[in-house]
Amino acid sequence: MRLPADARGVYPIAPTPFHEDGRIDHASIDRLVDFYLAIGASGLTVLGQLGEAPKLEHAESLDVATRMIRRAAALPVVVGVSAPGFAAMRALTREVMERGAAGVMIAPPHTLRTDEQIVGYYRQAVQAIGDDVPFVLQDYPLTFSVQMTPTVIRRIHTELPSCTMLKHEDWPGLEKISTLKAWVAEGAMRALPILVGNNALFLDYEMERGADGANTGYAFPDMLVGVVRLSQAGQREAAHDLFDAHLPLLRYEQQPGVGLSVRKYLLHRRGLLSSPALRVPATPMSATAQAEVEHLLARLARHDARARLAQVA
Amino acid sequence: MRLPADARGVYPIAPTPFHEDGRIDHASIDRLVDFYLAIGASGLTVLGQLGEAPKLEHAESLDVATRMIRRAAALPVVVGVSAPGFAAMRALTREVMERGAAGVMIAPPHTLRTDEQIVGYYRQAVQAIGDDVPFVLQDYPLTFSVQMTPTVIRRIHTELPSCTMLKHEDWPGLEKISTLKAWVAEGAMRALPILVGNNALFLDYEMERGADGANTGYAFPDMLVGVVRLSQAGQREAAHDLFDAHLPLLRYEQQPGVGLSVRKYLLHRRGLLSSPALRVPATPMSATAQAEVEHLLARLARHDARARLAQVA
Amino acid sequence: MRLPADARGVYPIAPTPFHEDGRIDHASIDRLVDFYLAIGASGLTVLGQLGEAPKLEHAESLDVATRMIRRAAALPVVVGVSAPGFAAMRALTREVMERGAAGVMIAPPHTLRTDEQIVGYYRQAVQAIGDDVPFVLQDYPLTFSVQMTPTVIRRIHTELPSCTMLKHEDWPGLEKISTLKAWVAEGAMRALPILVGNNALFLDYEMERGADGANTGYAFPDMLVGVVRLSQAGQREAAHDLFDAHLPLLRYEQQPGVGLSVRKYLLHRRGLLSSPALRVPATPMSATAQAEVEHLLARLARHDARARLAQVA
Amino acid sequence: MRLPADARGVYPIAPTPFHEDGRIDHASIDRLVDFYLAIGASGLTVLGQLGEAPKLEHAESLDVATRMIRRAAALPVVVGVSAPGFAAMRALTREVMERGAAGVMIAPPHTLRTDEQIVGYYRQAVQAIGDDVPFVLQDYPLTFSVQMTPTVIRRIHTELPSCTMLKHEDWPGLEKISTLKAWVAEGAMRALPILVGNNALFLDYEMERGADGANTGYAFPDMLVGVVRLSQAGQREAAHDLFDAHLPLLRYEQQPGVGLSVRKYLLHRRGLLSSPALRVPATPMSATAQAEVEHLLARLARHDARARLAQVA
Repeated sequence: MRLPADARGVYPIAPTPFHEDGRIDHASIDRLVDFYLAIGASGLTVLGQLGEAPKLEHAESLDVATRMIRRAAALPVVVGVSAPGFAAMRALTREVMERGAAGVMIAPPHTLRTDEQIVGYYRQAVQAIGDDVPFVLQDYPLTFSVQMTPTVIRRIHTELPSCTMLKHEDWPGLEKISTLKAWVAEGAMRALPILVGNNALFLDYEMERGADGANTGYAFPDMLVGVVRLSQAGQREAAHDLFDAHLPLLRYEQQPGVGLSVRKYLLHRRGLLSSPALRVPATPMSATAQAEVEHLLARLARHDARARLAQVA
Repeated sequence: MRLPADARGVYPIAPTPFHEDGRIDHASIDRLVDFYLAIGASGLTVLGQLGEAPKLEHAESLDVATRMIRRAAALPVVVGVSAPGFAAMRALTREVMERGAAGVMIAPPHTLRTDEQIVGYYRQAVQAIGDDVPFVLQDYPLTFSVQMTPTVIRRIHTELPSCTMLKHEDWPGLEKISTLKAWVAEGAMRALPILVGNNALFLDYEMERGADGANTGYAFPDMLVGVVRLSQAGQREAAHDLFDAHLPLLRYEQQPGVGLSVRKYLLHRRGLLSSPALRVPATPMSATAQAEVEHLLARLARHDARARLAQVA
Repeated sequence: MRLPADARGVYPIAPTPFHEDGRIDHASIDRLVDFYLAIGASGLTVLGQLGEAPKLEHAESLDVATRMIRRAAALPVVVGVSAPGFAAMRALTREVMERGAAGVMIAPPHTLRTDEQIVGYYRQAVQAIGDDVPFVLQDYPLTFSVQMTPTVIRRIHTELPSCTMLKHEDWPGLEKISTLKAWVAEGAMRALPILVGNNALFLDYEMERGADGANTGYAFPDMLVGVVRLSQAGQREAAHDLFDAHLPLLRYEQQPGVGLSVRKYLLHRRGLLSSPALRVPATPMSATAQAEVEHLLARLARHDARARLAQVA
Repeated sequence: MRLPADARGVYPIAPTPFHEDGRIDHASIDRLVDFYLAIGASGLTVLGQLGEAPKLEHAESLDVATRMIRRAAALPVVVGVSAPGFAAMRALTREVMERGAAGVMIAPPHTLRTDEQIVGYYRQAVQAIGDDVPFVLQDYPLTFSVQMTPTVIRRIHTELPSCTMLKHEDWPGLEKISTLKAWVAEGAMRALPILVGNNALFLDYEMERGADGANTGYAFPDMLVGVVRLSQAGQREAAHDLFDAHLPLLRYEQQPGVGLSVRKYLLHRRGLLSSPALRVPATPMSATAQAEVEHLLARLARHDARARLAQVA
């Protein structure tokens, strides 16, 4: 199955589950994927920026991706293949596509500056991986220090037909969505699905600006599915009510560094991960941070029953 | 009046009000300051990063600062004096201190990298402005690309007795507050008031970590005063309830670039600024953004009467 | 006198001379300018990146620029007016143009990334200073972290007729000169004088690529004049012989940080500056560095009599 | 054989030779290594920043390193293992050490800023690769944007006994060498061999400051050996004469981007590489650049017979 040219809905960014001793936790992979299927995810993404990909040896990366792909069955699985060189990117792409990946996600290296450098980089990446592999363009200036204007995104999308989705994580980014969607409406560029990231911090208004869904890793992807559906159904205030209830926690999880520990802690508390363990290097949660997250959960539980979790022993 | 060594509470960051034609709007300066006094602000800061200081000619900067200082009367006024060179920093410091400023705020230039460079910079800044001028250390890595560890902050604070307050805007920053406050408690450093910025995105938990207040420009500084007081009074859930009600709007205002337009629009809607005008260069709000802000206000008004504003004509 | 649209030759970047106690040294300003006139400079630039402009108070900047302009008489004087905001840029521009400056030089702020941001910045700068003021576009990615492609330079030059010269300091930069000069030759853009900076580290081949001269501060501007003339006269090997003799010292002076101390030391040793003093903050030369510079001078003196200086006491 | 704790002399950075069609060129690997042995190199480094390592698939990296190690026989071979994650770093280290590598070289990721982050990174790297593997600390701020003070280098070297050599490529860097060597002389830190990189642009004075040799890739490593030996033998002027003769070409090769094409072209012209081919992405030399390099060679040949190469057909 290939990543569809009209992707929409929620593609959760899957974390890589580990046992306490650092081994890959296959049972949790299965549990996570089953959960994504159950909540109505439209696809999923593995080995992304927050999937701890750089901490995996090559064989492990393949192992994780393959297990996710098989378990996801009918759901398209996108695999992050960003790498410092095209050789590694090409090798990983070839292997995961052979194993049934729907496409790959490529982030720009932090050294790119000019419009021409950015377009040129994606041109070379497509030469490396092959123009028959659908790819997701990741636009995340806060992390990668690469700024892509709407014009540059259109150039990449127009020149490279295998560009199939935009993972939009610019900040601020509302006007960018409006600009791109207006261009599509005017016929100034072909359709480009936009799924938003940045831990969904602006999902509420991004949907209203025309985004097609979310592609991020917040520990309540079921909330993301809910907001996307309510928004697409025109139930504006209900969408905002649901979103706003989660915003204090979502904001807490969005912190750089410690955020991934928070996310894994939450997924562990929800029973989806056997352990909240990260591989080193990691920014662990302090006891105070853990208490803050429990406090946020308790407050959230007043509005969303899914946050009513069993007490920590 | 000098910036006290035990500053606490809310020091709003004042915007610079302009008329539609770009002239400085003195009536709005007075109205803003009166408002800060009325809501219980403990001080205020002018010509900060979001005070459009670089768009002012030197005489205008002095004019704005002087008017604020006079109107604020008993409140300490801190003036931002960050500059590419020490000559301009020294000149502006001398002039505003003569006019009654309580102290100055100094941000690090983006070129600093190593711990020694950072400490050395502040040592030279103090040589330039004089060691009798209280200064606020601004720690805002997201904007300035300079990362100060707690160790570096302690070195600066220990070596330079005129370092009187930390404007804390690191992100994430909760553990940094805990570390610094623990050091003070242990006697490992002398007391250092910490007032938080970053549009107060984490004010709720920052207060619980030991912050002494807020030093930021959110358009509802009265909410900041409320959260700080509730938190200091131990009314934890009430503090969070108030904060959470504002979080959707506060997050919207925190966006880089367009955020200042949002803030001025809100202050205009609240009747504090005669006009929401910015001087160029500015990122204006689109009509869609304006409608989003009105929507956020309407939703906020369900929880906080201060957001019940007259309809836009 | 206005900066001519066909500038060529050598425009030395003048340092700001100080007395040992930090006061501006007017006699050395006069001596420097007289020297530039005597060696056949075509113009000169003051208050540039290495003119210690940020260490001057506003009145001092005006004083230095005015004295240079008057003394230079018939030579066009370009004044650096880069500033963190357009208000200061406009004010300084207005004042120096009234006093007879030939034009201004504007460097981009380090925050610019995309092509549109860069073009937009210069558009706004011209609105601020007025489109009747000739300006020099400074392209120095190593220092400013802003990368301008030839396409962006052409866009700026085409859209803004007051763009009168390119101070070219990209590294590497040979192909950029070839591209721009080819475009002019093909009629794809109007003529744009290119004077090279970066301490002239590639002046030899930059001239062969079509550069029109040099706009940099090496302590032997008479060598720069010589290389430019020999190259323009077709005496290729003689130009390289002269250049190569200076390259060991030129490279030493080009070091970031300490380079300006080296340059002022050399100008002092040549009798042009009464003192090698810099204002703080400065990176002073160690005794070892001073001995190395003397060694480089002694070796250079075997090839170029101008380096035969009286012994240090 | 392990990298000795008193390394000195020249460790050339070996390029990765390719055939025109992109395959690895084993015959050229052998020829290169034999040449390094013949000129008196003390060791060599493979898969460095300019070894095109990111363009190699994992098996190819191992193949290149292994062939170099075997051919080098008695010479210690250092392998670059910098990677975005510790998993890949550990895997490659284990494999090359099993095949006889003398140690590894580790560059810092560009995201490191504070002193503590830098020390922490190397601590974790040593945990990943094992504290029995000698490693070379690469200090190259111009490329990696990470600035290490002498204090930080001493902390790493003191805390991590497997830190065996400093590849010094700071710019400027002369005072850093003096500081570190003075500390060793005073007993303030244990001995640390310093071999200089940055294409040897300051090798002449770096040797006089106490550097122990060179660890860089200039296409005339025999010149580097000559300068190091002359300098160590106290023949100061002869060392400078040899160095200065090469400086025009060396500076040309040092250009970012195109520099590697220049280097491979020169090694091809010297008969050491069968082809000057680079793998994509590459910055190719223009015909003009090629003519400039030939011109530089012709001029160099007047002073150094090694530059008298057969004419290009």
